[in-house]
Amino acid sequence: MAVTLAQLAELTGAALRGDPATEVRGVAGLHNARPGEVALAAEARYASLAARTAASALVVGEAFDPAAAEVPLLVAAEPTRAFEQIADLLCPAPAAPQPGVHPTAVVAPDAEVAPDATIQAHCVVESGAAIGAGTVLRPLVFVGAGARVGARCLLHPNVAVLDRCVVGDRVILHSGVVIGADGYGYETRNGVHHKLPQRGIVEVGDDVEIGANSTVDRARFGRTVIGAGTKIDNLVMVAHNVVVGEHGLLVAQCGIAGSAVLGRNVTVAAQAGIIGHIEVGDGAIVGGQAGVMRSVPPGKAVLGSPAQEIEKERQCLVLHQKLPDLLQRIRELAKCVEQLSEKVARLEASANDDSEGR
Amino acid sequence: MAVTLAQLAELTGAALRGDPATEVRGVAGLHNARPGEVALAAEARYASLAARTAASALVVGEAFDPAAAEVPLLVAAEPTRAFEQIADLLCPAPAAPQPGVHPTAVVAPDAEVAPDATIQAHCVVESGAAIGAGTVLRPLVFVGAGARVGARCLLHPNVAVLDRCVVGDRVILHSGVVIGADGYGYETRNGVHHKLPQRGIVEVGDDVEIGANSTVDRARFGRTVIGAGTKIDNLVMVAHNVVVGEHGLLVAQCGIAGSAVLGRNVTVAAQAGIIGHIEVGDGAIVGGQAGVMRSVPPGKAVLGSPAQEIEKERQCLVLHQKLPDLLQRIRELAKCVEQLSEKVARLEASANDDSEGR
Amino acid sequence: MAVTLAQLAELTGAALRGDPATEVRGVAGLHNARPGEVALAAEARYASLAARTAASALVVGEAFDPAAAEVPLLVAAEPTRAFEQIADLLCPAPAAPQPGVHPTAVVAPDAEVAPDATIQAHCVVESGAAIGAGTVLRPLVFVGAGARVGARCLLHPNVAVLDRCVVGDRVILHSGVVIGADGYGYETRNGVHHKLPQRGIVEVGDDVEIGANSTVDRARFGRTVIGAGTKIDNLVMVAHNVVVGEHGLLVAQCGIAGSAVLGRNVTVAAQAGIIGHIEVGDGAIVGGQAGVMRSVPPGKAVLGSPAQEIEKERQCLVLHQKLPDLLQRIRELAKCVEQLSEKVARLEASANDDSEGR
Repeated sequence: MAVTLAQLAELTGAALRGDPATEVRGVAGLHNARPGEVALAAEARYASLAARTAASALVVGEAFDPAAAEVPLLVAAEPTRAFEQIADLLCPAPAAPQPGVHPTAVVAPDAEVAPDATIQAHCVVESGAAIGAGTVLRPLVFVGAGARVGARCLLHPNVAVLDRCVVGDRVILHSGVVIGADGYGYETRNGVHHKLPQRGIVEVGDDVEIGANSTVDRARFGRTVIGAGTKIDNLVMVAHNVVVGEHGLLVAQCGIAGSAVLGRNVTVAAQAGIIGHIEVGDGAIVGGQAGVMRSVPPGKAVLGSPAQEIEKERQCLVLHQKLPDLLQRIRELAKCVEQLSEKVARLEASANDDSEGR
Repeated sequence: MAVTLAQLAELTGAALRGDPATEVRGVAGLHNARPGEVALAAEARYASLAARTAASALVVGEAFDPAAAEVPLLVAAEPTRAFEQIADLLCPAPAAPQPGVHPTAVVAPDAEVAPDATIQAHCVVESGAAIGAGTVLRPLVFVGAGARVGARCLLHPNVAVLDRCVVGDRVILHSGVVIGADGYGYETRNGVHHKLPQRGIVEVGDDVEIGANSTVDRARFGRTVIGAGTKIDNLVMVAHNVVVGEHGLLVAQCGIAGSAVLGRNVTVAAQAGIIGHIEVGDGAIVGGQAGVMRSVPPGKAVLGSPAQEIEKERQCLVLHQKLPDLLQRIRELAKCVEQLSEKVARLEASANDDSEGR
Repeated sequence: MAVTLAQLAELTGAALRGDPATEVRGVAGLHNARPGEVALAAEARYASLAARTAASALVVGEAFDPAAAEVPLLVAAEPTRAFEQIADLLCPAPAAPQPGVHPTAVVAPDAEVAPDATIQAHCVVESGAAIGAGTVLRPLVFVGAGARVGARCLLHPNVAVLDRCVVGDRVILHSGVVIGADGYGYETRNGVHHKLPQRGIVEVGDDVEIGANSTVDRARFGRTVIGAGTKIDNLVMVAHNVVVGEHGLLVAQCGIAGSAVLGRNVTVAAQAGIIGHIEVGDGAIVGGQAGVMRSVPPGKAVLGSPAQEIEKERQCLVLHQKLPDLLQRIRELAKCVEQLSEKVARLEASANDDSEGR
């Protein structure tokens, strides 16, 4: 669908600088937009990207310097809002799927599937499982025996929710997510590892979203908990018996080891790790690639491996990069001290001469 | 199912302190048990958690201070054993599936499937593959052409065992595991990467368990080997031609690069990486987030990136966190030295005066 | 299939040292070959492995010392080439699958499937999707609504290409790859994270290969781009709106955060992370486990977390491991300075005595 900038100006209430007949067909990111697309340059820091964009038009704020870009501008009081209106027009959200159970889906006779739920091709829903109202299982999803998925959830292709696990309402699970694999627990006798049965479950709270190929293991006993409103990125590992509080953020490739307890609104940045059996307090922030080895008080930010208070670690990291300078300073000091020693020795000798000479 | 503490005391032989009519329905972890559940406080270090548990009862050892918790106690000589008996009662293991091939499974006519194997819904078993006695393929599992899966294995939903790979007996593969994707090998000519054919296989030994979404790549030629009894956690990467010895532990999100050779009983902790073409000796331990750049002798523990002997790295990490102090000491020394220099200069001048004055 | 070394010598033109009647059945890596297999010892540095190989024969170069191994040798001018000829004979590439749509595949009536494409068991191809000439979807692959997969691609079992994403020609996607999950984007108001719609797509260029369980997220708007010829290893995370240039190498478990832009021929080594909204120039190299926090100029190699120029970081890492020595030197210096101070104080006192005595 092609629209003119004149139409977009009318839609959004933005002021147009440039040819109103210019046509666009899509929206894109400023750094890799192509001709025929509109991009957003909401903040001043994007001025240099704006100057060399291939987009056919930009949505900008009123503070944007019109000389900073060579393409037509849609100048809006709220540029992000205006851009979203344009995106809604040019990239409409996908149509909701038709409710019902696809003939190739294998649904146990005693599973409870809400009448307006959607079970797409090649899904498997085992005995005693429940699928809530308005929930959509896209193709190739597995829901194990006795598992319960709440209302208005969206499970993308290749998700597995294993036996007896519980998923709340309005939860989004992206492709490849595994909820409820066994925890990693063994008893080692004479160098041989014997599996400890993993009898617990996973409980995923309401409004949780979990990214592609992330895994949340079931508890040894009891439950592994993902608190309501928590958002998990891709390739994240949450181990058995972990409790993640409400409204947390677990960024890509981070890992939380067994029985760690995270409070509310905790952020764990990308590739960080948290060892087992510790607590991370409400509102705490764990920096990228950190290795958290002991409990973190509420509200604290930590960084480094082992992690320490972020400001302290930042000083240490600056000094790490200055280690060659530190060494140089130590060497120079050592040279100074050596020269001083020689001088002092000479002074002492001369003083001795003096006193002997006296 | 609800049982009374009196029944649990009888079952386990534990002494009961508290109301024998108290009912419980499940077991859970001490840190997130709920009313109606029994939790275990086996070790003294859990006393503070025990004091504030929401569990309806605790299983404790005989050394546990009864004043440390406000809920009924089951005091056992072997508390872990007692707790497991209770768990067996309250969370029985899932029933074994009915053997047979589900009508939606696609099994090649020339695949060899043991009569008592179980092939569940939407599995695909290709030509020439073999599935051993008592083995269970849960739904949506793929076993490629010529692959062999041994006896009494359990392959969870969405596992892929690719062509010609070999899986031993009593192996557990969790959801999303990929055995036998191509190794990452290219020949680069003029900046263009040309794929090297990956013709080898993966051999997974007996009693191996591999966690959700972990990947073991096939060898360029020959075989990538996971030794018998090795236990691999989630999101672990084992590259082509790697040999992991028997009874190893590869913890979550660690990665082993191509052609590395790990001995018996090696532990690689979470998020660590081991570069290719090196050896890690029997019984060696690689610490969390370590980056191992050279071979590790048998029995050694290493830490850091690049990894070094663990005790040495621990000293270095302590000093890393004291870098601001070190800098301060260097500055103070420099000041002392400067003051000394001035004093010495004055002494020299005065000595010169003296000698000149003489 | 068994062949004699005489046959292999004839096939490859190699000179045979040893019994021409020796039979072999396969090829393998030098470090874990077994009797009945041929291994390659192309480089002198493999001499010690060659000395203790269990292979029945080795392919070596003309510079190889025949005394360094006890097994028959095939001595070739180009040993790698000779070994590949043997591998082609003993491990032939798998037969190309029969084109056509498997009866269990669910293909939307309006999907465009090339006549010579192959859609295997339990695949799902949604409405408006296109599958190009000669492309193979192995079992259990999902291609979403409006997605386009080019010609001569190979999508392994359990791959998901989500709605509207675009995959070029000759692309290989290994098992568990997820193309087009939603980007990780939220607007946080009063501690609650509200999902930002992710309306863009992923564009995967020609000749790309992506390893098992890696994920490439769709753009918020516009497109996430994997440039032609780029090769991605297993368990790699590419976030929304990232642009990876042509002929890049993203090694296992690395992660690229949102809107980062990588130039041509960039290498990101294993377990490294690149934060969002920065640029990594053409030909740059990011070392293993690095954490790149600011843009990297073309051609530069960086290491460390935070990453800095590689040679500088290497010096810092050497000094990190010498921190106990540095501390010792500082202590010794401090002791020297203290002794000097005392001596100087004595000299000053004595000088004072002198002058007072005069």
